[in-house]
Amino acid sequence: MDTESIKILLENVKSGQINIDDAVHQLKKLPFEDIGFAKIDHHRNLRNGYPEVIYSQGKTVVQIKEIVKRLMERNNNIMATRAGMDVFEAIKEVTSDAVYFEEARIVVIKKKDIQKSEKVIAIVTAGTSDISVAEEAAVTAETMGNTVNRVYDVGVAGIHRLFANADSLMNANVLVVVAGMEGALASVVGGMVDKPVIAVPTSVGYGANFGGLSALLTMLNSCASGIGVVNIDNGFGAGYLASMINKL
Amino acid sequence: MDTESIKILLENVKSGQINIDDAVHQLKKLPFEDIGFAKIDHHRNLRNGYPEVIYSQGKTVVQIKEIVKRLMERNNNIMATRAGMDVFEAIKEVTSDAVYFEEARIVVIKKKDIQKSEKVIAIVTAGTSDISVAEEAAVTAETMGNTVNRVYDVGVAGIHRLFANADSLMNANVLVVVAGMEGALASVVGGMVDKPVIAVPTSVGYGANFGGLSALLTMLNSCASGIGVVNIDNGFGAGYLASMINKL
Amino acid sequence: MDTESIKILLENVKSGQINIDDAVHQLKKLPFEDIGFAKIDHHRNLRNGYPEVIYSQGKTVVQIKEIVKRLMERNNNIMATRAGMDVFEAIKEVTSDAVYFEEARIVVIKKKDIQKSEKVIAIVTAGTSDISVAEEAAVTAETMGNTVNRVYDVGVAGIHRLFANADSLMNANVLVVVAGMEGALASVVGGMVDKPVIAVPTSVGYGANFGGLSALLTMLNSCASGIGVVNIDNGFGAGYLASMINKL
Amino acid sequence: MDTESIKILLENVKSGQINIDDAVHQLKKLPFEDIGFAKIDHHRNLRNGYPEVIYSQGKTVVQIKEIVKRLMERNNNIMATRAGMDVFEAIKEVTSDAVYFEEARIVVIKKKDIQKSEKVIAIVTAGTSDISVAEEAAVTAETMGNTVNRVYDVGVAGIHRLFANADSLMNANVLVVVAGMEGALASVVGGMVDKPVIAVPTSVGYGANFGGLSALLTMLNSCASGIGVVNIDNGFGAGYLASMINKL
Amino acid sequence: MDTESIKILLENVKSGQINIDDAVHQLKKLPFEDIGFAKIDHHRNLRNGYPEVIYSQGKTVVQIKEIVKRLMERNNNIMATRAGMDVFEAIKEVTSDAVYFEEARIVVIKKKDIQKSEKVIAIVTAGTSDISVAEEAAVTAETMGNTVNRVYDVGVAGIHRLFANADSLMNANVLVVVAGMEGALASVVGGMVDKPVIAVPTSVGYGANFGGLSALLTMLNSCASGIGVVNIDNGFGAGYLASMINKL
Amino acid sequence: MDTESIKILLENVKSGQINIDDAVHQLKKLPFEDIGFAKIDHHRNLRNGYPEVIYSQGKTVVQIKEIVKRLMERNNNIMATRAGMDVFEAIKEVTSDAVYFEEARIVVIKKKDIQKSEKVIAIVTAGTSDISVAEEAAVTAETMGNTVNRVYDVGVAGIHRLFANADSLMNANVLVVVAGMEGALASVVGGMVDKPVIAVPTSVGYGANFGGLSALLTMLNSCASGIGVVNIDNGFGAGYLASMINKL
Amino acid sequence: MDTESIKILLENVKSGQINIDDAVHQLKKLPFEDIGFAKIDHHRNLRNGYPEVIYSQGKTVVQIKEIVKRLMERNNNIMATRAGMDVFEAIKEVTSDAVYFEEARIVVIKKKDIQKSEKVIAIVTAGTSDISVAEEAAVTAETMGNTVNRVYDVGVAGIHRLFANADSLMNANVLVVVAGMEGALASVVGGMVDKPVIAVPTSVGYGANFGGLSALLTMLNSCASGIGVVNIDNGFGAGYLASMINKL
Amino acid sequence: MDTESIKILLENVKSGQINIDDAVHQLKKLPFEDIGFAKIDHHRNLRNGYPEVIYSQGKTVVQIKEIVKRLMERNNNIMATRAGMDVFEAIKEVTSDAVYFEEARIVVIKKKDIQKSEKVIAIVTAGTSDISVAEEAAVTAETMGNTVNRVYDVGVAGIHRLFANADSLMNANVLVVVAGMEGALASVVGGMVDKPVIAVPTSVGYGANFGGLSALLTMLNSCASGIGVVNIDNGFGAGYLASMINKL
Repeated sequence: MDTESIKILLENVKSGQINIDDAVHQLKKLPFEDIGFAKIDHHRNLRNGYPEVIYSQGKTVVQIKEIVKRLMERNNNIMATRAGMDVFEAIKEVTSDAVYFEEARIVVIKKKDIQKSEKVIAIVTAGTSDISVAEEAAVTAETMGNTVNRVYDVGVAGIHRLFANADSLMNANVLVVVAGMEGALASVVGGMVDKPVIAVPTSVGYGANFGGLSALLTMLNSCASGIGVVNIDNGFGAGYLASMINKL
Repeated sequence: MDTESIKILLENVKSGQINIDDAVHQLKKLPFEDIGFAKIDHHRNLRNGYPEVIYSQGKTVVQIKEIVKRLMERNNNIMATRAGMDVFEAIKEVTSDAVYFEEARIVVIKKKDIQKSEKVIAIVTAGTSDISVAEEAAVTAETMGNTVNRVYDVGVAGIHRLFANADSLMNANVLVVVAGMEGALASVVGGMVDKPVIAVPTSVGYGANFGGLSALLTMLNSCASGIGVVNIDNGFGAGYLASMINKL
Repeated sequence: MDTESIKILLENVKSGQINIDDAVHQLKKLPFEDIGFAKIDHHRNLRNGYPEVIYSQGKTVVQIKEIVKRLMERNNNIMATRAGMDVFEAIKEVTSDAVYFEEARIVVIKKKDIQKSEKVIAIVTAGTSDISVAEEAAVTAETMGNTVNRVYDVGVAGIHRLFANADSLMNANVLVVVAGMEGALASVVGGMVDKPVIAVPTSVGYGANFGGLSALLTMLNSCASGIGVVNIDNGFGAGYLASMINKL
Repeated sequence: MDTESIKILLENVKSGQINIDDAVHQLKKLPFEDIGFAKIDHHRNLRNGYPEVIYSQGKTVVQIKEIVKRLMERNNNIMATRAGMDVFEAIKEVTSDAVYFEEARIVVIKKKDIQKSEKVIAIVTAGTSDISVAEEAAVTAETMGNTVNRVYDVGVAGIHRLFANADSLMNANVLVVVAGMEGALASVVGGMVDKPVIAVPTSVGYGANFGGLSALLTMLNSCASGIGVVNIDNGFGAGYLASMINKL
Repeated sequence: MDTESIKILLENVKSGQINIDDAVHQLKKLPFEDIGFAKIDHHRNLRNGYPEVIYSQGKTVVQIKEIVKRLMERNNNIMATRAGMDVFEAIKEVTSDAVYFEEARIVVIKKKDIQKSEKVIAIVTAGTSDISVAEEAAVTAETMGNTVNRVYDVGVAGIHRLFANADSLMNANVLVVVAGMEGALASVVGGMVDKPVIAVPTSVGYGANFGGLSALLTMLNSCASGIGVVNIDNGFGAGYLASMINKL
Repeated sequence: MDTESIKILLENVKSGQINIDDAVHQLKKLPFEDIGFAKIDHHRNLRNGYPEVIYSQGKTVVQIKEIVKRLMERNNNIMATRAGMDVFEAIKEVTSDAVYFEEARIVVIKKKDIQKSEKVIAIVTAGTSDISVAEEAAVTAETMGNTVNRVYDVGVAGIHRLFANADSLMNANVLVVVAGMEGALASVVGGMVDKPVIAVPTSVGYGANFGGLSALLTMLNSCASGIGVVNIDNGFGAGYLASMINKL
Repeated sequence: MDTESIKILLENVKSGQINIDDAVHQLKKLPFEDIGFAKIDHHRNLRNGYPEVIYSQGKTVVQIKEIVKRLMERNNNIMATRAGMDVFEAIKEVTSDAVYFEEARIVVIKKKDIQKSEKVIAIVTAGTSDISVAEEAAVTAETMGNTVNRVYDVGVAGIHRLFANADSLMNANVLVVVAGMEGALASVVGGMVDKPVIAVPTSVGYGANFGGLSALLTMLNSCASGIGVVNIDNGFGAGYLASMINKL
Repeated sequence: MDTESIKILLENVKSGQINIDDAVHQLKKLPFEDIGFAKIDHHRNLRNGYPEVIYSQGKTVVQIKEIVKRLMERNNNIMATRAGMDVFEAIKEVTSDAVYFEEARIVVIKKKDIQKSEKVIAIVTAGTSDISVAEEAAVTAETMGNTVNRVYDVGVAGIHRLFANADSLMNANVLVVVAGMEGALASVVGGMVDKPVIAVPTSVGYGANFGGLSALLTMLNSCASGIGVVNIDNGFGAGYLASMINKL
């Protein structure tokens, strides 16, 4: 209920078309977002052309199908993240438009064209094992209307590989750095570019990496400025934040 | 050494004005940044009108004075962070232009005017004890040419205080959320706005907050998307990253 | 052995009906609970109309069946928590009265009617994945004679969902807040109501949530007063404590 | 703005006493608490006869004095927690009514009589070193209108001391158990009584107690049901929660 | 090589029966244990009538069979700990004398009679889920020649169960207390008896028990004196240490 | 109240010298220890000729003096542990018999002769920095009537130092091993002797020793059997447990 | 592009055989390693006769086969670490020269003879369960051209086993010590030899060993000097580092 | 006692110059190191021309003076590490030859010339705050006879600084990398050189660096091979290990 709706309600009160008790009732029940917080939740997604997002993990295939059906009623693109092949197949039964990005574990249902921004998000990984997390970020960013430049397997142990890709890093508007093990790549990239860097620690590694804690601490303690960190393996979160920044 | 310089060198080789051994020597010594990485380090700051930054902690007053003297030779603004009163007084001896932001613990030496961006960075704190970290972010952002809107003491335990400031949050281009104890504010703000949020956990609290770990984990695990986290108490890092994003 | 029994014993001593050595023996063997601690253990449950509780985890199906058989001899309601379908089927063989609450993983055997209190316990979850823990709390509370109001999936990332349910929260006598990931919901609810809040961190989440530690620390460090925390995923404990409080 | 106020506003709209634009403006600015959340924050305290609370830690003496002055304008009791002698002396300058509870580190300003509830809160400690945390709970509870029964130094290493006080435990309506070191007391008390127990781990101990973590984990993992845990050393939180429960 | 042997060697040197180079060689090769450390390793077991012990975990069934065969050549009793049914069956193929203690997961091969000490080791558990660890301790102690008194399921949440067994505790010469969850039982037992207590934390529990860490910290921080702690779930270690103490 | 006392009471009941209500009252108030648990607390100390112990840390000098005065009324030896010079001086004012063991930080007041056991407790340290913890153990053990053999500074980095003292280790009845840094000494000693070993981790070290956690984990995970561990720096606990074992 | 190549390029510029724009292009694209960092990555391996290494974990069998095919084109030896039987079989399809070291989980493809260094690397384990990690180190070192001396199962609990192998330890040029549980072996060996020791903590153990953390901390805190630590279970890393040192 | 001495002893036995009992006594007392372990402890230092080392921390000035006096009797160089100015002044009273390296906090007493190896140890730091730890390593290495090349303040945030020093890194025989905060430098250097790298994490940093844990985990998890890690801030250990390797 925006300003206009409240105005109409009040005019109806004034003209007697609606009695006062009913108006009080409507005003008290007036959904929260109608008095200033309308941007919250799915609304904000929609205005920005963002897709609806379903986090599949911890949901049954039945639940996911029902959610997809409900969302299909609106004219928005839809993403299901952390989706296994079974989730994809279930969604396929609802709509044949579903496309599966296997490495990213994301199902996308495109209901309207995505306007691509020309500003580039570079997504950089230290190793090949970090790629599935990176793809989650990449597909998220692409579905949210961004151009993505993938720069994979350029970890610091062979730093010339990174420098061979310096142009790709320099030309990006936002960078997502995905790294497991010791996660040092975020610091090196952060020191090379003058654009915001989103760092994603991954759980890749063994021994004292403690499920990604090692890379997480590295990234939080980075001696380079301009780095924001998301949760371990949270490719979706990184892609989403990078998109938000790229939209500015 | 940019493309032009290499060209000139080669022309001099061709014309015999420089002999080949000298040219080889020059090419091998050619400073790293000259073949594509010139933006690295202080250079990137300068091109963006960013100030030079001195991290005072762990440096002696004598060292800081010498660094300030050397930096004064260039025409850039200078910031000394984590600076106590003693640091300020030492810098005062070098230049009377130094201004001290006590709560932020930052000394600023303005050598040229800062162009203010009209896009606003909102800096939000949960409690009053988080304000010194927030001020570090705010003064950093202001010195880097941003308009800052301070929204302090709006923690979630009395959530109407937060909503009373909803407009300030909605109108910001980037938000920095500073919170200790359980750090829940970042999630709530992240759910209200559709702009990037930089979350700063603070070490404010007691008991099982483990020096800020509690707020840090909260922010990393936030159920709201679009949040990047910096290190505990790292107001400078948040202000710097917010500036980078706001400059895009 | 209550006061009365001791009196009778002494009278029998006095009258010579029992000799002194026998009396000494009885007094020394007198079960602990008889001199003031009789309320301990199952006794306290029974007086309050509480059900007998079997914690199924770590017990074999054979053991559980035997315990149920023994408990069936008394006229109390019985609950088996953390019970899988196999436990339910085993209990079914003992008594056809067993009812299975699948999501809560609780088997209930009702042997006498449960008197419902009119005071309401609200059970609130942040997400849908927290519901199984919430149901453990809810079924526990209901079996202990409480009216439960379920308010599910109202996490802080879309805070208008929470406020749309404000009345439900306000009308509760005790609240149980169940949340994983960053667990911020407990603080927000704690700030909205003036009734005791039992916070249950869940292990829902990934990355740096460390099996629920993230939500646990958030809840312990809550800036809102009036919150007591139970163990990670301990829906039963929360339902039990809420019932105790609601009975006062 | 309660239902009545909205009604009047609408009647004024209807009667033309207020024009529609002004009414829209009023409705949009309508303070959050006016549409159902008025209980939030200090309001809830006041209605319950709760005191206003100032958390002194991290605040300057100047700030505290100003807050006290402002609060003195209303007719409520005031508590300043975590208050050293210097805080007390500063408050003394504002009002001679301030009373200092040194062991609890609380300053109380009584502006109206406190109605004592007859239902008793028992506050139990394992050792003498836990007493200052216990006193914070006790003074908080008393200032909030409760009768407190102190049962100190009854730790489990000499369990007959605890049983000698069994009556005190049995007669309480709510219990607060304060224990450091291994914190086992909460489990034993929880097993003896059939009333809610608030457990407060303290940082008392050495070696592998890790600043109270040991007692915290013990209490969260308690094999006794009906125990809610607050943060380490959080006597105020325990006293507050116990009061809330005791008021039901 | 004891004093006597060295003497003989020297006498042979003196008499010329052995030449100096050979003597030097023998002296330099002289096995370590021969000059004072002969008690080390299996030797110490044998002198005390202790069995040979095979830790089965991480060994293949083939390896275990070979070790058993080799040990069978001596006249000692043999124990295989952490032994599954497959290990038992493999050992059965080597010797039909093997007996399997299923709950303790120990195979015992008795080759000579065990002399039972009359001094009792009491083995006490908090819950039924702790019994398998307790049985590992009990069977170890029995195989090492001790009389064991099992006192199971007497956790502190129903403390009268513990006191009902006070005599068993008082009459023991050494006590082993096995407890998971919060592990409080060790402190209470430690406060009741004046004999050494070996505390064994178990990994039984859930949520914030962190695989037994909770009980471990409780036991290390116990306010009762006279408690030594072994590793989580280390029933064998506790039984072994208790036997050593009981042999004194 | 022992069996005899109960008998007399009953006889008085029988003879009418005491009325039944009074007898009931006496029986219900009958101190816990009188019906079987009399060994608890100080009583057990006294029967064993153990000293009374005051844990000074966290107690004021005034409190300690009062406790000493009260204890002086009985004819027992007294120990104050964790006692600084100020505590000693305060106790000196109460009794001139107080003796201060500075390195152990223990004050001893001998009121009757200590009967020395001939069985030796060896107290072994890895380094010189572990000596103050070792002395706490040693003075505790001596005051409790044991003969102590100090074997200091024999850490594993120069293992010949340890072997040069092999006889001292072999001749002990119980051993206390005190070690910081990596705490490996406990395992080596445990492998050399066939007597119980009490391991005391100390907080000596730096870097990743985490206040003694490193040595604690080492000792708990020891590959040698027959080792019980006490809390970090808990020399008193080790001395006490060793004494208990040595008394058997 | 080494000095010589740059010289030739410049001479071609001078002689006009190449025009300046092309030369600039070549110089700017000149691969990073050509101006000083050519040793990085695989190059350094090759010059040292090191094998190419494939870390199999997290790679699909298809990926590994492709990498092997590509590497087969050069004349280098190849190692695939963390390789299961399925990886071996896949590689077998590419080349029949592949040899599988099952305990080490390494596949080796020898394309040219390995020159054995005469200087010995001793690889020492505490227990038999540490052998697979040790074999990973041993096979790595052997494939890199070292003579390896295996000294297995000489943990400190039976220290005479270690001393019986003193000569093997003394004669080594570099030592790798592999130990789980409490990891004390590294300290003892470090104190016995005057050569560099590489310590490898293993995840072998249970209870409070926390996946190898216990042994890791022990090794980092070792009181013996001359010890460098690698990650938990990182046999390859230890073998590689030992080889590097042995090559000096 | 080497082979020769044993031979002479035996010859004396044979010739009757020494009687058998005395010979037995000498052989049994024969210091451990005489039968093969003579390299242990100070002996190994001396043969290598290593200095005697005093770890000053936790020792009193009086103790240190006594140790220095005793060591002065031999003709070896002496180092006191972790030595404050007060330690230096105390040693000065013993010998005027003492030289103080303030930043390294090391006192060196040179009693004979140190033979410098020509092979270089490069000591590299990320920041200026890491220099004191680096100097501890450097002075240790120099006093042990190595040529040290200091490469300070070349952290990865401005990676061109590192590459500008590539020659220094390439020319070293062993490298010590000292870094706090996120410690990424070790990985980058490890990837650039083909020599062993000793990584020293420092406690420099703030927030989630947890006293150096962040850098420690980074270094242990490094994706570059050939890195051995020492304890946090352990400059001495790194210098010592580097020296050992450099001596090979």
